Amino acid sequence: MARHQTVAVIGAGDYIGSEIAKKFAAEGFDLFVGRRKGDKLAPLVNEIEATGSTVFARALDARKEGEIVSFLSDADKHAPLEVCVFNIGANVNFPLLDTTERVFRKVWEMACYAGFLAGREAARLMMPHGRGSIFFTGATASLRGGVGYAAFASAKFGLRAVAQSAARELWPKNIHVAHLIIDSGVNTAWVRDRIKEREGQAALDNLDPNRLMPPTSVAEAYWQLYQQPSTAWVFEQEIRPFGEQW
Amino acid sequence: MARHQTVAVIGAGDYIGSEIAKKFAAEGFDLFVGRRKGDKLAPLVNEIEATGSTVFARALDARKEGEIVSFLSDADKHAPLEVCVFNIGANVNFPLLDTTERVFRKVWEMACYAGFLAGREAARLMMPHGRGSIFFTGATASLRGGVGYAAFASAKFGLRAVAQSAARELWPKNIHVAHLIIDSGVNTAWVRDRIKEREGQAALDNLDPNRLMPPTSVAEAYWQLYQQPSTAWVFEQEIRPFGEQW
Amino acid sequence: MARHQTVAVIGAGDYIGSEIAKKFAAEGFDLFVGRRKGDKLAPLVNEIEATGSTVFARALDARKEGEIVSFLSDADKHAPLEVCVFNIGANVNFPLLDTTERVFRKVWEMACYAGFLAGREAARLMMPHGRGSIFFTGATASLRGGVGYAAFASAKFGLRAVAQSAARELWPKNIHVAHLIIDSGVNTAWVRDRIKEREGQAALDNLDPNRLMPPTSVAEAYWQLYQQPSTAWVFEQEIRPFGEQW
Amino acid sequence: MARHQTVAVIGAGDYIGSEIAKKFAAEGFDLFVGRRKGDKLAPLVNEIEATGSTVFARALDARKEGEIVSFLSDADKHAPLEVCVFNIGANVNFPLLDTTERVFRKVWEMACYAGFLAGREAARLMMPHGRGSIFFTGATASLRGGVGYAAFASAKFGLRAVAQSAARELWPKNIHVAHLIIDSGVNTAWVRDRIKEREGQAALDNLDPNRLMPPTSVAEAYWQLYQQPSTAWVFEQEIRPFGEQW
Repeated sequence: MARHQTVAVIGAGDYIGSEIAKKFAAEGFDLFVGRRKGDKLAPLVNEIEATGSTVFARALDARKEGEIVSFLSDADKHAPLEVCVFNIGANVNFPLLDTTERVFRKVWEMACYAGFLAGREAARLMMPHGRGSIFFTGATASLRGGVGYAAFASAKFGLRAVAQSAARELWPKNIHVAHLIIDSGVNTAWVRDRIKEREGQAALDNLDPNRLMPPTSVAEAYWQLYQQPSTAWVFEQEIRPFGEQW
Repeated sequence: MARHQTVAVIGAGDYIGSEIAKKFAAEGFDLFVGRRKGDKLAPLVNEIEATGSTVFARALDARKEGEIVSFLSDADKHAPLEVCVFNIGANVNFPLLDTTERVFRKVWEMACYAGFLAGREAARLMMPHGRGSIFFTGATASLRGGVGYAAFASAKFGLRAVAQSAARELWPKNIHVAHLIIDSGVNTAWVRDRIKEREGQAALDNLDPNRLMPPTSVAEAYWQLYQQPSTAWVFEQEIRPFGEQW
Repeated sequence: MARHQTVAVIGAGDYIGSEIAKKFAAEGFDLFVGRRKGDKLAPLVNEIEATGSTVFARALDARKEGEIVSFLSDADKHAPLEVCVFNIGANVNFPLLDTTERVFRKVWEMACYAGFLAGREAARLMMPHGRGSIFFTGATASLRGGVGYAAFASAKFGLRAVAQSAARELWPKNIHVAHLIIDSGVNTAWVRDRIKEREGQAALDNLDPNRLMPPTSVAEAYWQLYQQPSTAWVFEQEIRPFGEQW
Repeated sequence: MARHQTVAVIGAGDYIGSEIAKKFAAEGFDLFVGRRKGDKLAPLVNEIEATGSTVFARALDARKEGEIVSFLSDADKHAPLEVCVFNIGANVNFPLLDTTERVFRKVWEMACYAGFLAGREAARLMMPHGRGSIFFTGATASLRGGVGYAAFASAKFGLRAVAQSAARELWPKNIHVAHLIIDSGVNTAWVRDRIKEREGQAALDNLDPNRLMPPTSVAEAYWQLYQQPSTAWVFEQEIRPFGEQW
């Protein structure tokens, strides 16, 4: 069932990115996973290798054009790059007046500029194959500039535009570009800490299990996108748990 | 693999509706299929029964509350109603000044009012089960009121609102309401006739096979929606072939 | 400063509709105002006539094609129909399961079907003049199908589609079609009663004056739309008070 | 009729920016106008001064935080900063694969990052006054990532998010933040050259005068936004000529 195709996950964090990697590994793909702090990838690598799949892990500063270029071209050299998932978040909340130019720039570099680089390089490699999938992870802030989100929403709106333009250019080349918007909290340590911080330990202890999305559900959503026939592709979809208010 | 659950398709036309019915039958569901002219359902019934699945066909004027009520309650009596797909179209194009009040009303009754009745009755039956899926078929005109589409877009916008309100009310009850927007022509005799009419026989003969969506792809899209875990449901998605301009 | 042009207001209720009528009367137009219960128009007529302007009031069931036709053609016979404002609301809130087919149909007839009739007839009369403005009042529910709003949102979505199609057909004929979305409560007796009902007398007494929009501000917004040069028309805008959450 | 209030225009180009400046000068405001090449501001300064109004012109690289800070604080020192218009465009079109990281970054710095700086600094100065207006110029690409617009649309989407977040934070402080989307070509030398380039001299000679928006109409739209009562503010509106297809 090995496919001799590579899936690259840029932003292979402990939750969403890892689950995406594991899902595609379980489906027979070889994985290339990157994140800023490469040493944090060890558990993911162990878990994937334990199932007999192939995975290459690398420290990756996705804001550096050269690093993106070599990460993806190495992936494609190993086996044709079939899927590239850009999954870097940079969720910060500052009132507009407290948003420094440094924060604004850095959030954009991580969440938008790096996504542009990844999308462009993946497309470059997929064009000769005449196929491929390029997926971007979006958030509520991809569609709504809320209070305190000038920096984050600006970057996420910007990434969405990259995805749209890329889709309109690349779909006719049989490259499926899609933008998956997660419109809820995801069940991660970071989100649980925020809930504790804002609402207290009791709120966390009594948390409705349906309020936070399990990272595995995000991986499932990407897997669905990947399986869509090219005669009925989806560009964008929002996912949320059934109990979420929207 | 029989599931002892019923799927109801309201608007089981020769193309999209039929393919949805066949897909869910192939997955083990019992089918209830309805359309205005019930005698046209014979080929679909034969095809489904030939595979060993169970299907009940009925002439159904979905604009009549009583008919919707009995169609769906009979479906639920046969076996718990698990999925209800509302798939009635009413695509007409008239300049605003040539749109009679009769056309405006009739298109609304078919494409919006009937959808409200179907959604409400399906919900009524699913509530005691604590589960279910209610799916509505949308179109480009669900999001855009184009030239000549005052009647059709008005009905499709209205149906989308019903779906949204229903989703916000029913998701927390574990009933998945979704709205699938087909943003392209579908490969049907009717669409092919329109192309011939507007662009000539040559255009039809040389038609890019990727310009029109196969009805089976719509069925696949519904099947994906049905399989989504309740922790990551999609309310709305637009599907189009990879070669479509948008 | 009399203009010898007529402005018709369909749905000239005590608040928004009346203020629109008074504003255009003050700007020199002759007014035709209609609402279901014609006797309720007396105070408005008195107020406008006291300023020396001309106003014709009529009981009008806007769901009756014949009544719309004669109301608008009489207006145009008096003096060329320059502006037609469709301002009928039908704000109701029922859970989906408690929405009767009668309510669903009636809300649609008032808020959508009547708007179609008004827009079509106004267009018919304006075409020979080569100019005119057709304005529709929208609401939060024009863009969002919330809990309890299956009927109302469906009708308002439908009206918005009529407005869009009409705009795309009529703008090139120099007829300005626009859709004004009021995304907040308006300061009316009805809204104040709802607040008292839901939040108590104290809430009403301490109401932030900036939470509810004054009906005069809606009239100002329509006046702005009317003044726009045809080289930079707006189709749709949402207005809300500066203190509103959105 | 002098108001002893300042209007700052960042991106006071030959067309839109200049007309905005002239309009507000004609209404009695003192002007601060900035653009990258300061010497190009001479004709605008002459024109405004000839009417007896006050204008300060300055070379301004809006991508430099220090320059924005001093430009706006000098404006506010002269007389309270009442309006700040951010009007820098950076319209480029490159296929995704031909979009260099340098272009992507530069377009963002001009069209998004500079807008963030301008909005934040204007807000900082307006907060103590308890009033003010901050307006951003958008484009078709603010809402749509078309073919060839990965860089430009990404920046314009990002600017729109800044405007949204700013509006949600600042409206309650009585500061009107708005985003004006120009959804058509504007009648400028640059646009006319593009038309000639793409469609030929004949197309340019026979150009429908209603196809391109006059820059004065954009100025009028801003003037309307400025006049709106705070009880009925608009955040976003799209303007287009009556003959435009949309």
